[in-house]
Amino acid sequence: MTFKIDGIVGALRSARGASARTVDRDGNVLELPSPRDLSEIVSGIISSLFPRRYGGARAAMNGALDYFVGYTLDKALEGLSKQVVRELVFTAALAGRDVNDAESASRDIVQNFADRLPAILEILYSDVRAAYDGDPSAKSQEEVLLSYPGIKAVVHHRIAHVLYKLDLPIIARIVAESSHSATGIDIHPGAEIGPSFFIDHGTGVVIGETAVIGERVRLYQAVTLGAKRFSVDESGALVKGLPRHPIVEDDVVVYAGATILGRVTIGRGSTIGGNVWLTRSVPPNSNIVQAQARSDTFDGGAGI
Amino acid sequence: MTFKIDGIVGALRSARGASARTVDRDGNVLELPSPRDLSEIVSGIISSLFPRRYGGARAAMNGALDYFVGYTLDKALEGLSKQVVRELVFTAALAGRDVNDAESASRDIVQNFADRLPAILEILYSDVRAAYDGDPSAKSQEEVLLSYPGIKAVVHHRIAHVLYKLDLPIIARIVAESSHSATGIDIHPGAEIGPSFFIDHGTGVVIGETAVIGERVRLYQAVTLGAKRFSVDESGALVKGLPRHPIVEDDVVVYAGATILGRVTIGRGSTIGGNVWLTRSVPPNSNIVQAQARSDTFDGGAGI
Amino acid sequence: MTFKIDGIVGALRSARGASARTVDRDGNVLELPSPRDLSEIVSGIISSLFPRRYGGARAAMNGALDYFVGYTLDKALEGLSKQVVRELVFTAALAGRDVNDAESASRDIVQNFADRLPAILEILYSDVRAAYDGDPSAKSQEEVLLSYPGIKAVVHHRIAHVLYKLDLPIIARIVAESSHSATGIDIHPGAEIGPSFFIDHGTGVVIGETAVIGERVRLYQAVTLGAKRFSVDESGALVKGLPRHPIVEDDVVVYAGATILGRVTIGRGSTIGGNVWLTRSVPPNSNIVQAQARSDTFDGGAGI
Amino acid sequence: MTFKIDGIVGALRSARGASARTVDRDGNVLELPSPRDLSEIVSGIISSLFPRRYGGARAAMNGALDYFVGYTLDKALEGLSKQVVRELVFTAALAGRDVNDAESASRDIVQNFADRLPAILEILYSDVRAAYDGDPSAKSQEEVLLSYPGIKAVVHHRIAHVLYKLDLPIIARIVAESSHSATGIDIHPGAEIGPSFFIDHGTGVVIGETAVIGERVRLYQAVTLGAKRFSVDESGALVKGLPRHPIVEDDVVVYAGATILGRVTIGRGSTIGGNVWLTRSVPPNSNIVQAQARSDTFDGGAGI
Amino acid sequence: MTFKIDGIVGALRSARGASARTVDRDGNVLELPSPRDLSEIVSGIISSLFPRRYGGARAAMNGALDYFVGYTLDKALEGLSKQVVRELVFTAALAGRDVNDAESASRDIVQNFADRLPAILEILYSDVRAAYDGDPSAKSQEEVLLSYPGIKAVVHHRIAHVLYKLDLPIIARIVAESSHSATGIDIHPGAEIGPSFFIDHGTGVVIGETAVIGERVRLYQAVTLGAKRFSVDESGALVKGLPRHPIVEDDVVVYAGATILGRVTIGRGSTIGGNVWLTRSVPPNSNIVQAQARSDTFDGGAGI
Amino acid sequence: MTFKIDGIVGALRSARGASARTVDRDGNVLELPSPRDLSEIVSGIISSLFPRRYGGARAAMNGALDYFVGYTLDKALEGLSKQVVRELVFTAALAGRDVNDAESASRDIVQNFADRLPAILEILYSDVRAAYDGDPSAKSQEEVLLSYPGIKAVVHHRIAHVLYKLDLPIIARIVAESSHSATGIDIHPGAEIGPSFFIDHGTGVVIGETAVIGERVRLYQAVTLGAKRFSVDESGALVKGLPRHPIVEDDVVVYAGATILGRVTIGRGSTIGGNVWLTRSVPPNSNIVQAQARSDTFDGGAGI
Repeated sequence: MTFKIDGIVGALRSARGASARTVDRDGNVLELPSPRDLSEIVSGIISSLFPRRYGGARAAMNGALDYFVGYTLDKALEGLSKQVVRELVFTAALAGRDVNDAESASRDIVQNFADRLPAILEILYSDVRAAYDGDPSAKSQEEVLLSYPGIKAVVHHRIAHVLYKLDLPIIARIVAESSHSATGIDIHPGAEIGPSFFIDHGTGVVIGETAVIGERVRLYQAVTLGAKRFSVDESGALVKGLPRHPIVEDDVVVYAGATILGRVTIGRGSTIGGNVWLTRSVPPNSNIVQAQARSDTFDGGAGI
Repeated sequence: MTFKIDGIVGALRSARGASARTVDRDGNVLELPSPRDLSEIVSGIISSLFPRRYGGARAAMNGALDYFVGYTLDKALEGLSKQVVRELVFTAALAGRDVNDAESASRDIVQNFADRLPAILEILYSDVRAAYDGDPSAKSQEEVLLSYPGIKAVVHHRIAHVLYKLDLPIIARIVAESSHSATGIDIHPGAEIGPSFFIDHGTGVVIGETAVIGERVRLYQAVTLGAKRFSVDESGALVKGLPRHPIVEDDVVVYAGATILGRVTIGRGSTIGGNVWLTRSVPPNSNIVQAQARSDTFDGGAGI
Repeated sequence: MTFKIDGIVGALRSARGASARTVDRDGNVLELPSPRDLSEIVSGIISSLFPRRYGGARAAMNGALDYFVGYTLDKALEGLSKQVVRELVFTAALAGRDVNDAESASRDIVQNFADRLPAILEILYSDVRAAYDGDPSAKSQEEVLLSYPGIKAVVHHRIAHVLYKLDLPIIARIVAESSHSATGIDIHPGAEIGPSFFIDHGTGVVIGETAVIGERVRLYQAVTLGAKRFSVDESGALVKGLPRHPIVEDDVVVYAGATILGRVTIGRGSTIGGNVWLTRSVPPNSNIVQAQARSDTFDGGAGI
Repeated sequence: MTFKIDGIVGALRSARGASARTVDRDGNVLELPSPRDLSEIVSGIISSLFPRRYGGARAAMNGALDYFVGYTLDKALEGLSKQVVRELVFTAALAGRDVNDAESASRDIVQNFADRLPAILEILYSDVRAAYDGDPSAKSQEEVLLSYPGIKAVVHHRIAHVLYKLDLPIIARIVAESSHSATGIDIHPGAEIGPSFFIDHGTGVVIGETAVIGERVRLYQAVTLGAKRFSVDESGALVKGLPRHPIVEDDVVVYAGATILGRVTIGRGSTIGGNVWLTRSVPPNSNIVQAQARSDTFDGGAGI
Repeated sequence: MTFKIDGIVGALRSARGASARTVDRDGNVLELPSPRDLSEIVSGIISSLFPRRYGGARAAMNGALDYFVGYTLDKALEGLSKQVVRELVFTAALAGRDVNDAESASRDIVQNFADRLPAILEILYSDVRAAYDGDPSAKSQEEVLLSYPGIKAVVHHRIAHVLYKLDLPIIARIVAESSHSATGIDIHPGAEIGPSFFIDHGTGVVIGETAVIGERVRLYQAVTLGAKRFSVDESGALVKGLPRHPIVEDDVVVYAGATILGRVTIGRGSTIGGNVWLTRSVPPNSNIVQAQARSDTFDGGAGI
Repeated sequence: MTFKIDGIVGALRSARGASARTVDRDGNVLELPSPRDLSEIVSGIISSLFPRRYGGARAAMNGALDYFVGYTLDKALEGLSKQVVRELVFTAALAGRDVNDAESASRDIVQNFADRLPAILEILYSDVRAAYDGDPSAKSQEEVLLSYPGIKAVVHHRIAHVLYKLDLPIIARIVAESSHSATGIDIHPGAEIGPSFFIDHGTGVVIGETAVIGERVRLYQAVTLGAKRFSVDESGALVKGLPRHPIVEDDVVVYAGATILGRVTIGRGSTIGGNVWLTRSVPPNSNIVQAQARSDTFDGGAGI
């Protein structure tokens, strides 16, 4: 009439016991930042940046809007601060370090983050304008802000990137993945991306940790800016942090499905054609397209 | 002890002030249609189309089911009407036009939309049958309706397309993007798609605004029906609305990863193989496959 | 002032009436398993597997944790049992069979499912370790569990696969699709996947029903393990259930965008390069890369 | 660091084990009707009676309103039917009886209940009019329906009374108590109350099970229509079901705080003054007031 | 298998059709203010008055608190404004009047209401102090604010009273009834109540529309300040608005259960004993107690 | 177009600034226990006591039920512990004391509270039995537990009383008031109440802080067990904590509306009639009834 679960509960306990886990000096399991909480926090930050479009606020005179912005921002920062404490404590425990006053350190970091928001907003306006200018079907910047997945991805990335620079890689990653899940666009929070950046359609785009992207760059769906290979040290372990992803200079366009791998440089003003596979640098103003190589003999499909 | 945000709130206000925005004649910022509200509205419309499968209704005799359908539909149309008013007012303000009685115009448009729902339902049944017939693992049409992302995408598209034809491009786009986010399938609401259409797997599919797709067409994941290039007028501005995406005739199958670009025609009954890159028309009953071109020399990967 | 919907409600009723649907012997429309309910149920099962990371539970001593695990698991199994009854009754009606005591049968199946959870947890720990070992940017297994879409996909797959093996293909499919929607990774619940499996980035990955994957295999985004063609019987109907997807042996790495089709075998220790198109078997330790075939003549893009 | 609860959980189990409880023949504890579910069900029934005022429906033409009414009512009846099954099974088990097809019996009872709703609505309109006519501050019947606790109490009572007459005393009691909690007015569902009934203010009113109230009766706060004593049989057990509460004839007014006890009759057209204590019958058109008995010597208060 | 409700829906429609209802010139049924919306609005207003205790805000420096207060207040006023429009339109239709620009009139009224909030807050602080001073068990004013039903009642009353003075009797009544339901204290929004007012326990207190209460008055549970009789004009209709409830001067205490009826004056500094029934004025500093009148013969109880 | 609130926000800030408030040594405003949180916590505690009736748990074998009980209890205790910390810190700050390790102290108190739950459950079973035995209309103890407001009040009181004895008067008071609001029964958490206690109907009952009630006592609605007067010390300040409410010995019944004031003793087995006003002790087995004092002259009512 009911399920027999006592044995299962016990077996799950044993399995958990055998797994690696990070504990503090007293043996307590440490909490990690919460994706659910961060999702709400980032949503609050975005509402404070775009109060009329994301915030559900009335179209109000500046006075009343400031109350909304201040309230929303303050609440989001307060929430963020708790998540930052978790990352600081967890990371220190991983490294065997002590944490002195994680709460105070967290507040400084979060204040620092907040101070950069006006600059983030300025860049995001440039991104919205780039989408508006680059897409003939866009009728207004407001519409772009509302409905373009490429804009959603870049808004999240610019927030995640600041968090990454403030030495919060776990939180930054969680923010990036929530955007990845919603848009299919996977931008590592470490990537450096200049203003007026636009990704159209976007599904399947992957941009690696050390990629550097200039101003006014435009990407289409399924573009990969990846690493060619991982460097391995003498002991065979992966070497971390080396520049291993492409540098894409100003005013480059990369069409759908193109794959660019390794620390190569795509010169300014170049155009990379659809589905191109590129593992070398190209000079400024290059036009790269895929080889023509087709046959008309049917050899099967990719049905699954 | 608390965050210093007064300066930030002020700086955000200044940044907003400098950005472009659309206002009415009195300088009030205009509201755009709300993605959140539209998500609920479209969900209501779908429940009224498929009351037993999406609506959570009991499996009832037709009488009681009609109450559910009528109630759900009426509520959704009422909600839609408010969003349409927003788009009409916003669009008119953008164009510097006056709006006479946007509410009444909205009601007419929404009634027009509602009148087309029975025809939409008929076509959707053909799509469900096509999925059922085309996928050997499908055991019943009900299961297809419940769980296939390709069906979710086409249900949203057929709704979005009617909205697009009723001159509501912003609302249509928002509906399309909500489906894109959930399925990874990006169909522009302008695309014309015939009955018995089926997309399998679907992630990464992109179908452009002026694409025309016949009856009984089947697509697999990552297929692109795109534009080859954008036309530019004398002043260098993009020319909008020109037919620039493929025409795919009846009974065509396009396998995974194929890219078809430009206003080309894929003749009826043709099969386009996986990963094919195609920028020219092909006659009916063609079989197009990718060139064989491989080497076994390891030259790196796409690790990121 | 209000919408005229009486005629529409009637027309929708007629359209529904003409469509195929599965009924029991008394003509009552049958309920299918509910994606919404299953989403909550699977979330409960995952919380019982990873109570500290997904469950929101305090980091407690084992005693209190067991209460959480037992309660969460019991509730999820109870919910699952109701969904299983629906699938059993629906499937029997489709086949014209009688169902004797679906509730009792469901309880046995669900108990059987529950008994396998500790083994699933053990394998999932191997997957988490594989992700941690394979990704230089991962700093802890906890972080991997929290934020990697590849982990989310494999957690759902291992649950869906057990349900599939217990002859619940509809429920298994619904579970798989919910993961597909969130991650862009589409793994058929029938696929056999060994321990220490890792998918990085993941958007666009498709793994077919009869694929067999060994131990310590690593895939990148947009990899397809698909069928080359469907077998057709004398009457032209699709033959179901035949092995038609690749066998990928132990320690294979497949880089982004590679497409492997048909019942081919990728020998152990092989590396398949990015964007490779492969329809034949390769021996152990092969290195397969895409042909070099490029031109620098600009011939357009894939703008849409 | 955590609470020691294993012993407590065990002690609670023992305490539960020692308590009386009602089980079916297999020893399973039986479910009772759920107050929370019934609250939602009754709310649905009321919305179907007053769709414009309680239902949140638009002020629509009758057609669209019928969809709301039919949908809301059907859903509420379906929910009620499940609760009725619980009461039937529970009551039968208490009495040691078998239940043959509780579901079918429940459906008949609920259909019977539903058939009486139009008549209930007619009487409720008379109650609203009585409140409107009797209260000089009421400006419209709509306002009365919206905000008068006496109306809320009588709406619940008329529903509970029909359930009581259909032999569902537990459900009827739960409905009555939910109204008691919200209004402070405690009407036993067994009380017979004629049309045009009005309770003003209401807090503290108590009306007993066998009370009989005529037409156009008006009560104020803290009025009790109670039993004088309980009859005891030879063995000392309470005798149930005997008429033991007052009969209040047509057009009687009972002012605040009056207490009327026993099977007495208040003749038609009588007025019972505030705080009167009455344990005998009075003829028609009586005016009963409290004795004048005061002193001005301060002897303390009722401070607490 | 399902309920027969078509006939019921029709009968309910007929019953509705026969009932009185208020429509506009086009025959559309008019909306009244919504109790549910008003409950949320009043909750917002209270949060803006007591941001630390009701608002869930962090204990912040004044700057951040102002954002919360401004945001919460602005949102509540916006909501209130919509409800005021409904009352204005409804009341005008009842009176057969035209409404010119109800929205603009509503904004003026709501601004007027908002302007009085600081003064309301000052008086509420006096009430909290009175409760703290008058109840020996109160340990802090914060605790009083949190948990005393008398304070909840007076907070709602002071808001409802301002709304009543602004000619919004329906909204005022709805606010008062929501407090009545939660506390059992029924204060008509028309009652004039001076500062430092305290009701202890409170259940069953009733204060009429034209009651006038001075400063530092204290009431206990079940006190009635009511009307003795209603005045009737020559045609037998009730005369509205006449002063008909007691005047209670400064520093009066009324103990539990006392009933004071009619336009009598309780002189300053008087004490009215528990359960006293009083229909005449008393001079300042009176002590009124109930007559001693008891017997020890058991004559029954008030069991029900 | 918008509200002018800047001045109001400033005025509210000033009003707040002038009010008394409790701060810690750094000037931070202190948080009090949250009524909303406590409501959820108490609901969890009650679910752990009555898992089958309040908890929504399946009627399960003891094993699975224990998981529910343990999980629910653990979560509730964790939540309670946070509220206890708030009360300890707040109370210490009020008294100018330091708090050493409030968290640890809180855990001890909460563990102590938890340890008493099995004993509370035993007494509550006696209360349920008393209601069942004392009310002829009760058909089962389960029904009593589900729907009787007197049971709801006593369940909350027994929990609040333990909290009161553990020196948590603020939390205890909040728990008591939530029950008061739902039932109209106002029991001070300090009151000592023996087993098998039953309150019927209940609205308007008030029981004071130092009341002592024996075993098998039964009260009806509107009974007051209050203080006659407050003692004042030489300086005129109220003397707290003195026994000032009645002692009601075993097997006493007090009928509706009776008022008993002061530190009097109602001897065992006595019956106090309805509406009796009693300020002196009575010997065991007394029968006290209200004096007969009536007139038939109409002198007005209590209409309001």
